Amino acid sequence: MQRVKAIVYGVGAMGKIVTRLLLEKGVHIVGAIDANPDIVGRDLGAAAGIGRELGVTVRDDADEVLAGRQADIAIVSVASFMETMYPILARCAAHGVNVVTIAEEALYPWLSSPELTASLDRLARENRVTITGTGQQDTYWVNLIATLAGTAHRIDKISGLVSWNVDDYGAQVARDARIGDTVAAFHSYIEEHGWPPSFARNSLECVVSSLGLSISKIEERTEPEVAEEDRYATSLALTVPAGDVIGHADIITIETHQGITLEMKMIGRLFAPDETDVNEWNIEGEPAIHLRNDDVNTQFMTCTQAVNRIPDVINAPPGYVTVEKLPALRYRAYPLGVYVAEGKMHRRGRRRRR
Amino acid sequence: MQRVKAIVYGVGAMGKIVTRLLLEKGVHIVGAIDANPDIVGRDLGAAAGIGRELGVTVRDDADEVLAGRQADIAIVSVASFMETMYPILARCAAHGVNVVTIAEEALYPWLSSPELTASLDRLARENRVTITGTGQQDTYWVNLIATLAGTAHRIDKISGLVSWNVDDYGAQVARDARIGDTVAAFHSYIEEHGWPPSFARNSLECVVSSLGLSISKIEERTEPEVAEEDRYATSLALTVPAGDVIGHADIITIETHQGITLEMKMIGRLFAPDETDVNEWNIEGEPAIHLRNDDVNTQFMTCTQAVNRIPDVINAPPGYVTVEKLPALRYRAYPLGVYVAEGKMHRRGRRRRR
Repeated sequence: MQRVKAIVYGVGAMGKIVTRLLLEKGVHIVGAIDANPDIVGRDLGAAAGIGRELGVTVRDDADEVLAGRQADIAIVSVASFMETMYPILARCAAHGVNVVTIAEEALYPWLSSPELTASLDRLARENRVTITGTGQQDTYWVNLIATLAGTAHRIDKISGLVSWNVDDYGAQVARDARIGDTVAAFHSYIEEHGWPPSFARNSLECVVSSLGLSISKIEERTEPEVAEEDRYATSLALTVPAGDVIGHADIITIETHQGITLEMKMIGRLFAPDETDVNEWNIEGEPAIHLRNDDVNTQFMTCTQAVNRIPDVINAPPGYVTVEKLPALRYRAYPLGVYVAEGKMHRRGRRRRR
Repeated sequence: MQRVKAIVYGVGAMGKIVTRLLLEKGVHIVGAIDANPDIVGRDLGAAAGIGRELGVTVRDDADEVLAGRQADIAIVSVASFMETMYPILARCAAHGVNVVTIAEEALYPWLSSPELTASLDRLARENRVTITGTGQQDTYWVNLIATLAGTAHRIDKISGLVSWNVDDYGAQVARDARIGDTVAAFHSYIEEHGWPPSFARNSLECVVSSLGLSISKIEERTEPEVAEEDRYATSLALTVPAGDVIGHADIITIETHQGITLEMKMIGRLFAPDETDVNEWNIEGEPAIHLRNDDVNTQFMTCTQAVNRIPDVINAPPGYVTVEKLPALRYRAYPLGVYVAEGKMHRRGRRRRR
């Protein structure tokens, strides 16, 4: 068994968690990339709060790090949208390094950013590497739902309800979410400025692909979440009075040619003190099927899934490979290198038999 | 696309549901086998309550039906334990017919009936067919749990709580469950007669296999479920007074060499009027993970999973192949023959590339 060699690309809040998880899964970290001047030049162990030196310096010359370190994979936690991610993912591919990224749009960007994704797919194939987007959506918004759907005889509608606490992600996110707006101000803001596309769309599109369906229509709308009683926003040090905006719900509805509707409501709002992230799915059809995850640790499980996916990505065929095309994500009881070796053996075994 | 040709082997409560589901998934039913004299000689459509003739007569000469009909697969719903199932599964294999069965032990019989399973595995390989056990456990007690586990960084313990209504399965099942016993009588019955092994064990062993763990110790125990208030058993036309037995809980605990404990509590009892089948799983570790399915239609989804599994079983390599080795179970929007053809294409495609 050879240890997996990885580069931590992006050492922000998520990259720090990823660093610890990689070490605990026996991964050899051979490089770290970040542009933040506060940590460039420092040891990754210090930058990520590991409590010991790792002998890996955080550097901002990405090409240099990627070229020299012979990594099997880069774990990229930098930004959310493909437009920003494109040059980063392309750079990894050009250096022959596989990529797993938690960029939300990267989960299933085939329809939201078709040209960029096709270009990355080409580049990945040329350089014999795989690029995959994962994160919380991988299991909780896609594969768990597809697994559940496998138990249905007839599906009329799949509905998801997902919630997250706007207050957990700092002042900028809270301001972007228009926390504290009046309902009228919220609506006129959207009318004037539009609203960023929801990543719920990418997840539902991935579910559609996983179920082998085809899309006839997509609708997106955004609604304000309104405070029923005064609610305090820690991130903004602000009390939002009852009747004003404490967040928003993105609602995506997909119709398919197979007559199955998929709908996902993603609520980001200031949570009440006892509220936790929820993931709840219902299938209408024969039979009716319900699933609920309570007290979901969205942020942490975005990192665990990125790390647990590493063997699947290394062993996948070259190209931009979205998660519904990968093997079912599994727990990693052993160092990740064990699973990479197992996958290779499995592939060789199959080849021999034929 | 060729239609899947199937034999319905066992036309009891489950076989009747399976018959309708097969027809609605475009399967060509070419034979029906049952020993019940009330239905032998009748058309399957009448016997299964389909409301129209199917041109398939229910027969009790299994060898004859299996030999002549050139079926791709038999859907076997006859009994629960491998000892009873062995000759039936062996007969299908000997005639070159793939098998999907809802026999509970068949889900993962490698440890509970090792010789019988090894013998069936050999027979299946010799005859180039696949034998697979599925049912409610496939997704709700195995693959959903393995999927959930894939999002954990560290697992200390996996605990499942599953419940079913003893009153749903007729008088014999209720009597076997000692409904109406005093607690003392229940305990002395077990002391004298023992208690049948729980299928929860087979499910947990399948989870262990799916996670790539190895077992160091298995413990099974059975406890009475005691009525908190008087409860009526429709199946027995009997009111069980508070303090007496309304069912039992089978509790299986598996320790692994990897330090992960798996525990499953399976409660079969007389439900309160508002109670429904529940499926609830918790993972202790980092992070804690919770999943709950409410209002679970256990009986119906045993049939849907058997039917949806058909393409996977037909396309699997020969042998006794348990579900954790099959592809993730998926919804079948199209006639099953489409998925069989897709799987074959996929296999040919892979072969060509190499």
